[in-house]
Amino acid sequence: MEKVNVQEKLELFSDHWRPKVVGELNGQHVKLVKFQGAFVWHDHKEEDEMFLVVRGAFRMEFRDGSVELREGEFLIVPRGVEHRPVAEEEVAVMLFEPAGIKHTGDVESELTVREIEWV
Amino acid sequence: MEKVNVQEKLELFSDHWRPKVVGELNGQHVKLVKFQGAFVWHDHKEEDEMFLVVRGAFRMEFRDGSVELREGEFLIVPRGVEHRPVAEEEVAVMLFEPAGIKHTGDVESELTVREIEWV
Repeated sequence: MEKVNVQEKLELFSDHWRPKVVGELNGQHVKLVKFQGAFVWHDHKEEDEMFLVVRGAFRMEFRDGSVELREGEFLIVPRGVEHRPVAEEEVAVMLFEPAGIKHTGDVESELTVREIEWV
Repeated sequence: MEKVNVQEKLELFSDHWRPKVVGELNGQHVKLVKFQGAFVWHDHKEEDEMFLVVRGAFRMEFRDGSVELREGEFLIVPRGVEHRPVAEEEVAVMLFEPAGIKHTGDVESELTVREIEWV
């Protein structure tokens, strides 16, 4: 059984918007991702999604408002709710969501990643 | 949709070994708990359990070894594996686990809590 050091894992990649799996339990994945700039609008029909800020800050936009998140804060976006993360500066985020979720939902974009990548 | 500030939530309670739910998604609970001292040996037959250290450090003991965890590190304990958290000094931990899990597994102890408590 191996522990995971979050900061060490974050040092292993520098790309943006490409979540890396760092753990799996109960059919859920724990992921790390770096955001910078604006993502695409999307939702997840069947999956709730948790965003925990590890370093930095970002804004989660919704069609009717937004939530500012900084280090040590998290937000759970319920299934079916359109959202778009926007980061003025780079932010590191831990995600908790079902294994197999597509990060852009049903939206096809140049940002869409199909592989599951562990780090 | 309300964000959660982990440190603010931690200030709302001071008891040990009594996990507080701070979020729910996909049938899973996100909890905060403070450990101090030694817990009871137990396992969870059907549930994997994740321990992320928010503040402080502790040792997860297994029947055949142990893992030291400090701030920013996490460990996933697979279902069926006996474990016992031990904290020399108080530690604050975030848990991810299925809603409805019993924190002492099938072991009945004076530490066993039956209610689900949100904070």
